[in-house]
Amino acid sequence: MRLSQFHLATVKEIPADAEIASHKLMLRAGMIRRLASGLYTWSPLGLRVLRKVENVVREEMNRAGAIELLMPSVQPRELWEETGRWEKFGGQLLKIKDRKQQEFCYGPTHEEVITDFARNELKSYKQLPVNFYQIQTKFRDEIRPRFGVMRAREFLMKDAYSFHLTQESLAATYAVMYQAYTRIFTRLGLSFRAVQADTGAIGGNASHEFQVLADSGEDAIAFSDGSDYAANIEKAEALAPTSERPAATTALQQVATPTQKTIEDVAAFLGVSPDRCVKTLLLRGRDGLVALCLRGDHQVNEVKAAKLDELGGESILASEEEILAAVGTRPGSIGPVKLPDSIPVIVDRDAAVLADFVCGGNADGTHYTGANWERDVRVTRIADIRNVVEGDRSPDGEGILHIARGIEVGHVFQLGTKYAEALDAVVLNDQGKTQVMTMGCYGIGVSRIVAAAIEQRHDDAGIVWPEAMAPWRVAVCVINPKHLPAVSEAAQALYEALNARGIETVLDDRGLRPGGMFADMELIGIPHRVVISDRGLTAGTLEYRGRTETESRAITQEQLFDLLV
Amino acid sequence: MRLSQFHLATVKEIPADAEIASHKLMLRAGMIRRLASGLYTWSPLGLRVLRKVENVVREEMNRAGAIELLMPSVQPRELWEETGRWEKFGGQLLKIKDRKQQEFCYGPTHEEVITDFARNELKSYKQLPVNFYQIQTKFRDEIRPRFGVMRAREFLMKDAYSFHLTQESLAATYAVMYQAYTRIFTRLGLSFRAVQADTGAIGGNASHEFQVLADSGEDAIAFSDGSDYAANIEKAEALAPTSERPAATTALQQVATPTQKTIEDVAAFLGVSPDRCVKTLLLRGRDGLVALCLRGDHQVNEVKAAKLDELGGESILASEEEILAAVGTRPGSIGPVKLPDSIPVIVDRDAAVLADFVCGGNADGTHYTGANWERDVRVTRIADIRNVVEGDRSPDGEGILHIARGIEVGHVFQLGTKYAEALDAVVLNDQGKTQVMTMGCYGIGVSRIVAAAIEQRHDDAGIVWPEAMAPWRVAVCVINPKHLPAVSEAAQALYEALNARGIETVLDDRGLRPGGMFADMELIGIPHRVVISDRGLTAGTLEYRGRTETESRAITQEQLFDLLV
Repeated sequence: MRLSQFHLATVKEIPADAEIASHKLMLRAGMIRRLASGLYTWSPLGLRVLRKVENVVREEMNRAGAIELLMPSVQPRELWEETGRWEKFGGQLLKIKDRKQQEFCYGPTHEEVITDFARNELKSYKQLPVNFYQIQTKFRDEIRPRFGVMRAREFLMKDAYSFHLTQESLAATYAVMYQAYTRIFTRLGLSFRAVQADTGAIGGNASHEFQVLADSGEDAIAFSDGSDYAANIEKAEALAPTSERPAATTALQQVATPTQKTIEDVAAFLGVSPDRCVKTLLLRGRDGLVALCLRGDHQVNEVKAAKLDELGGESILASEEEILAAVGTRPGSIGPVKLPDSIPVIVDRDAAVLADFVCGGNADGTHYTGANWERDVRVTRIADIRNVVEGDRSPDGEGILHIARGIEVGHVFQLGTKYAEALDAVVLNDQGKTQVMTMGCYGIGVSRIVAAAIEQRHDDAGIVWPEAMAPWRVAVCVINPKHLPAVSEAAQALYEALNARGIETVLDDRGLRPGGMFADMELIGIPHRVVISDRGLTAGTLEYRGRTETESRAITQEQLFDLLV
Repeated sequence: MRLSQFHLATVKEIPADAEIASHKLMLRAGMIRRLASGLYTWSPLGLRVLRKVENVVREEMNRAGAIELLMPSVQPRELWEETGRWEKFGGQLLKIKDRKQQEFCYGPTHEEVITDFARNELKSYKQLPVNFYQIQTKFRDEIRPRFGVMRAREFLMKDAYSFHLTQESLAATYAVMYQAYTRIFTRLGLSFRAVQADTGAIGGNASHEFQVLADSGEDAIAFSDGSDYAANIEKAEALAPTSERPAATTALQQVATPTQKTIEDVAAFLGVSPDRCVKTLLLRGRDGLVALCLRGDHQVNEVKAAKLDELGGESILASEEEILAAVGTRPGSIGPVKLPDSIPVIVDRDAAVLADFVCGGNADGTHYTGANWERDVRVTRIADIRNVVEGDRSPDGEGILHIARGIEVGHVFQLGTKYAEALDAVVLNDQGKTQVMTMGCYGIGVSRIVAAAIEQRHDDAGIVWPEAMAPWRVAVCVINPKHLPAVSEAAQALYEALNARGIETVLDDRGLRPGGMFADMELIGIPHRVVISDRGLTAGTLEYRGRTETESRAITQEQLFDLLV
């Protein structure tokens, strides 16, 4: 592509509401333009990148035996009523009435439509397993669209759905998809982790999220330095401590902590470290309040907590009023000692091996020192209710956990029979009996990958594309083309030679001054830059610079070709 | 592709509401499945064909210098208010309210969005001309969706929009697009005509429709056998007759035609041919009724009529009540003789050269014979108000017109400044002054092409794809693969050899009996079929049959390769 024939429009001024690096850089590079809240036009430059991602996804899905189709984006209400999701899906579902007042939605996902397709198309176990996918525009009416295409309302997604007779068959296709996803993100040149994910309210047997690592990521990931173990922090188990609880050695004593609000303040005031303190949270349980006790340096894991029988699926903090009414003190002074009998006390496994610890005094402005379980505190149950932290042992016993932040770009999920049952999607099995199919689903946020890659790979000058995602791999820049026809011709020849070798190259023949030209090529993240100048032409060399290099160097054309193989 | 690994699902029973060949065949071949009225899932087989069309369109658009981008499908009401189309577009516009009660539509076309993009992106005449396109899902809420994907509500379209400083620049890009469209439909292997189209209410300077010829087409096209001239019948000029009007020779005489209703009946009764009769239509004009007079064998052209000053843009027949009130007779007996002075009489050019003609008597059950213009009939004006007919001279003076039926699959249009003015899309010209841009727009109905091709190319056995649109060019069929491993291996080897040569081939390894296998391959329209059998293997030959051939023939593998080059 010759840039003079392209529409490249980098900009200096961008809206103040662009908060994160990818959003800012995509606007500055002119990859996207906002049409309305959560709605973006992909400019020619942006679309080139989007298509590269799309093509890698398609190639690997095909290679993995998935079969592409294309479902409508507009879906009838009736189908969503069959699964109960017309109401349950919530405000993200964009509902539409047509001219005949019939109701539809703009599909945010396609479980209903594909299961309807499958119940009509699939009649026999001989047609199974089968894995259908599509790459298609979806819409989710986000309550607060932001971060550009990272959390847009209209977005491009690859969604796949597999159908099986047995759980074993589902597990096999799930493994194939897991491998395909690994190849996709590896080919795209991204640093990522496949993490065990909580299966949440949907149920199902197994689920992995594919997370692109980036400091700005919304999700926290725990991964081992000694094995492949990686999990969403909600899911990662905190192993039970290997040590036993020591015997009590000190007496329980109530002390005044008149102005100390946080665990850190209390610990400093009393001269102990936070990991010798116990913090207590009161939550709304199934039958009244429930106390959760954790070590002072640990954080409660809401997903683990919600799974406690006493909490019954939700993890909601009690209000100050509820706490005052039940215990007679404010949240900052709550402790497990002498709590009313009606409140179960659930102790995290690490808190449970403490002795002679500090905890809230259940009276404003006081704490206890020398507290001990059983002796001073009634313990209902010991459980894993905390988030893992950097340095914890890996749950698989291999290595130590580290915490990273990630952006979810893919999700594989063993759905089971939820949708097939709701829509009565059955086949005849080898006994001639009807049997509900078992399903898997596998999503990739195609447009989100573009933003996630930028979050992971950028510097002060702009985007640093991996080769597979770059709009072009090489930029050939011409200095002063109008006045130096020989330079212009040499640049043209090099541009053609590179493209002829299958190396996607852009010729910057816009006639800009070098500074502006180089700044543009760095901003839009071209991995390799070659400058053709009068001086270099005389010397028979090109001036080369890799995107992450700080200096240019003179190389020959042959060296350039070798470098780009 | 091995069919055993694909989802091919041909069906015997199809819904009775499938009226036209393409709809029936797409359902029978399993290319599409209905989700709801006007909403179809493209099955894996259908999508293969759709993508082939899409890719040819994309390649030729790129070759023609157009630049691809991707706009949102959901568009804000505010933009459509700026052009006045939020109300004017009518019921086809699918309107949507989001969770914040803001209004949007599912884009049926993108003039508003691209012009908004252009007014923000384009600042200087140096950025012009530029031609942006996208290939994208659109929605039109058809009042009566039918004919499958031919008139679906959700469909795939390529839409391009060019921006210019001058009419000359627009005309140049228009010509480039015209040529690109010609290449696209030629490459797709379709028989088509680029026809001059009426520019209708949108205005603009020039417009061509690309029509795929098919007997079932909704549009009538006039084309010359002596030149490239082709026009939508609404647009085709009927040349003025070369002969002069003869002098009157007979007296005006009122005759009884008691039971004769139609021109044919009256002509037969009076012993003259219909082309010696004049029929008269009364329409609602700007200032009361207007009479249109045509030769008895000609049909009024409503588009031409609507453009008459007296009619003022519309062509609406007067009701029987209006006619009775104005003339005192029923529509079947209306004639131009002695009409009230308030009714202008507009005579078609061919009717105007008649003498001694037959016409309505302006009294029920009567006609006149021996009528003559001027002598007996007040003539307000002579104009071209009829449809051309088979045998008319071509308007360009070269050859004779023929009439064919077509399906509109593409449209190129010189829009002018309509949208740019409404949205204030200006650039600085070379004088440094702001100037409104001039626009062209260029559409192709990508999904409609698939149906149109089938309308043009099918037989009793099924679809007859042109090579460029076929899901696969070649089908290798294996007879009895399970029991004859040598046959199976030879088929596999041939399948691989063909694909290695870049010839897209499908291996029918499903193990069907020959009849079912051949019927499927004919139904889904594969251009070339090769059968590998035990007998052929011994003889060193393959059994080959082209899709439109009636007999198979034995050929060698080398002959097959030669044939498919």
